[in-house]
Amino acid sequence: MTRHYNFCAGPAALPVAVLERARNELLDYQGRGLSVMEMSHRSDEFVAIAERTEADLRQLLGIPTQYKVLFLQGGASLQFAMLPMNLLGQGGSANFIQTGIWGKKAISEAKRLGFNCHLAASSDVNGHTAVPDENALSLSSDAAYLHYTSNETIGGLEFDYTPHAQRDDGVSVPLVCDMSSNILSGPLDVSEFGVIYAGAQKNIGPAGLTLVIVRDDVMGKAPSTIPSLFDYQLLADAGSMVNTPPTYAWYLSGLVFQWLKDDIGGLAAMDAINQRKAQKLYAAIDASDFYSNPIAVRNRSRMNVPFVLADARLDSVFLQQADEAGLLNLKGHRSVGGMRASLYNAVPEEAVDALIAFMADFEQQRG
Amino acid sequence: MTRHYNFCAGPAALPVAVLERARNELLDYQGRGLSVMEMSHRSDEFVAIAERTEADLRQLLGIPTQYKVLFLQGGASLQFAMLPMNLLGQGGSANFIQTGIWGKKAISEAKRLGFNCHLAASSDVNGHTAVPDENALSLSSDAAYLHYTSNETIGGLEFDYTPHAQRDDGVSVPLVCDMSSNILSGPLDVSEFGVIYAGAQKNIGPAGLTLVIVRDDVMGKAPSTIPSLFDYQLLADAGSMVNTPPTYAWYLSGLVFQWLKDDIGGLAAMDAINQRKAQKLYAAIDASDFYSNPIAVRNRSRMNVPFVLADARLDSVFLQQADEAGLLNLKGHRSVGGMRASLYNAVPEEAVDALIAFMADFEQQRG
Repeated sequence: MTRHYNFCAGPAALPVAVLERARNELLDYQGRGLSVMEMSHRSDEFVAIAERTEADLRQLLGIPTQYKVLFLQGGASLQFAMLPMNLLGQGGSANFIQTGIWGKKAISEAKRLGFNCHLAASSDVNGHTAVPDENALSLSSDAAYLHYTSNETIGGLEFDYTPHAQRDDGVSVPLVCDMSSNILSGPLDVSEFGVIYAGAQKNIGPAGLTLVIVRDDVMGKAPSTIPSLFDYQLLADAGSMVNTPPTYAWYLSGLVFQWLKDDIGGLAAMDAINQRKAQKLYAAIDASDFYSNPIAVRNRSRMNVPFVLADARLDSVFLQQADEAGLLNLKGHRSVGGMRASLYNAVPEEAVDALIAFMADFEQQRG
Repeated sequence: MTRHYNFCAGPAALPVAVLERARNELLDYQGRGLSVMEMSHRSDEFVAIAERTEADLRQLLGIPTQYKVLFLQGGASLQFAMLPMNLLGQGGSANFIQTGIWGKKAISEAKRLGFNCHLAASSDVNGHTAVPDENALSLSSDAAYLHYTSNETIGGLEFDYTPHAQRDDGVSVPLVCDMSSNILSGPLDVSEFGVIYAGAQKNIGPAGLTLVIVRDDVMGKAPSTIPSLFDYQLLADAGSMVNTPPTYAWYLSGLVFQWLKDDIGGLAAMDAINQRKAQKLYAAIDASDFYSNPIAVRNRSRMNVPFVLADARLDSVFLQQADEAGLLNLKGHRSVGGMRASLYNAVPEEAVDALIAFMADFEQQRG
C-alpha cells in the first residue's frame, strides 16, 4: 500500500489514523459482528455513535446550548435553498456579501426560488482578490439575515473578520455563514452566528453529509408548506433522523472529531499547524518570480492556495511531474485554471514541505 | 473478527465480499495512493467508478436507453417531495395506491406541499394485510401519475402485480414506484414505469444514496422555481453532479452491483435465492401455532417477514436469546411491535436456516 500527498479541494484528504480505524472496524464494529454501515440508525450502537459525534463537535467548537447541530444530506448547495425557505418565512430579504463563486451560487438559488435578495457588499470590483472592508457593508432595511462565505474554495479568498450583521435601523439580524471549506481549521466563536453550515467533504468527513449549526430562535419560522425535510425545526426535533441519515458518513465524521481532539489536541493546535503550512507555502510563492498568487495578503486562504506559473504552457508538465512525485490533485478549478493546493486539516505539514521542494526543483529545471 | 447474521430492515446487511473489498481498498484505491473517499468527484478515477456503477445497474435491470439513472441524496422520503414538484408542474393530481406506512407518508408530503392528491386504492380496509385487487384501481380524471410502494417494509406487504396506470378516459399516465425495499431482489420490466426510486440502504448500498430511474419524457416539466437540486432534468444533465455527490456510497453501490453480477449471476439467480429464503421462513411460521404472520399469502413480502409470538410476553426473551445466538435485529418496527426478519439480497440462505432452527428451539423451550 502506498499513500500519496493529496491536495484535492474536495472530496479531500482524510487523516490516515481515521482511515485506518475505519478499515479495522469495517466488517465488525467493536465485536458486534456487523459493520456500522449495516446498523439501524435507531439501534443503541448507532445512537451512541451519533451522540458522541455531536458531543465531540460541541466540545471542539464550544457550541453553546442554545444551538442545535444537524447532520443532513444534500451538500452546502441544498442549504442555498433551505436557508431562505426557513429564514424568510416571515418576509424580508436575504442579504449577501459576495466574494466569489460559492457566494454567487447562494444568491442565484435564493433568487430562483423567488426570494428578495440584496447585495450588502461584493468583491467583484477587485476580481475577488480582497474581501470588502467591514465598513463597506450596507444591509437593506428589510434584511432578515446576512449571508457570507467565510472561505471561497475556488478563489482562495478567506475572511479575516466576522461581519457585523446590523441594519441601519440598529436591528441585528442572524449572521449566516457557509463554512464548507474552513470550518474546524481553527477556533470559532459560534455565538456570533445564527446559522453555520458546511459540506463535510473538506474538514469534516466524506461527501454526503452536511453539518448545520443553528440557533434556536432562528428555527420554527418556516412556512408549513416547505418540504418537511427542509424544516430545521422538524429536523432538530427528530435529532436529524426524520428519515434515515447518512450513517456511515456520520460515523466517519465522529472519527475525524476524535482525531482532532486526541491526536491534534483541539482547534487551537490545529490552527497553529494550519498557519504554519499556509505561511510557508505563500512564502515560497512570494519568494519566486516563477509562481504567483493574486490574493491580498490579509485575505489569503489558509485552506486553498491557488497559484499560477509565469508561463501557463508549463501547467500540464508541472501537474504531470507533481503527480509522478506523489503530489496529487494540484490542478486548479476548471473555471479558473492554474494550480491549487488545498491544505485542509488532514494534509500534513510534510506534504506542504514536499510540495515546496518540488516547486523549487521545477522552477530550477524550467524557470 | 466475528460476523453475525443481520436481519435489520435498514440500513441493512451488505455482502461480506463487498465489505472485504472496500476494506482492502480503503486507504489505497488500486495503487493510486488515496481512498475513494478522498477523490474529487470530477477526477478520472471517480468518473470511471461512477460510469461503471451505472453501466452495471443498467445491465442488471435491463434499463432502456430512454431512462436516466440519478444518484442522489435525501432518501426516498425526499422523493416524496421531489416527485410532485417535478411531475405536477403542469397541473393535475397525484394518484396513490396506499398499502402501508410508507405510502401514507408519500401522500402526506404531497398534501403538505399543497398538491392535489387522490387515493386510487387502499388496503386500509383489510388492515394492510392484502394488496387491493388490480380491478379496484380508480384513477381520478385529472391524474398526472400513479404512485405506489411495491413493498411495504414495515407491514411486510408486497405487490404481486404491476399496476396499470390508466385513467377512465383511456389516457395512460406515468407509473411511479417506491422500490426502496425490494429493488434488485429479482428481474424487473423497467419499461412499465415512469419513475422508479429507492433509498440505497436495503439492496443497493449504504444509507445516504438514493437511486432514481426516470424516463426522459417525465423530466423537463418542473417549474423553474423549485430548488435546482430537485429538478430531475438539471440533475440528469449534470450526470448527478450538480454538486458533490455521495461518492463513497456511490462506489459501494457499484461493488454491490458487481457482486450481483459476478458472484450471484444476475437478478434471476438472486430471485431464486430470495424465493427459497422467504418460502422456507413462511413455511416454518405456518407450520407452527406459536408463530404467525397476518399477510395474505400472495402478498407476503420476500424481503421483510414480520411475525408475532402467540404470547407477546415472550418477545423480549426471544429477542435477547436470538441476539445471543448471533441473530441480530429481529425486533419489529416500533410502530407495530413483534418481530421482523428482513431477508434482503445480502442475507445468506444460511442465516435463514439458522433463524428457523432457533425459532424451532425457542418454541420447544417455551411453546
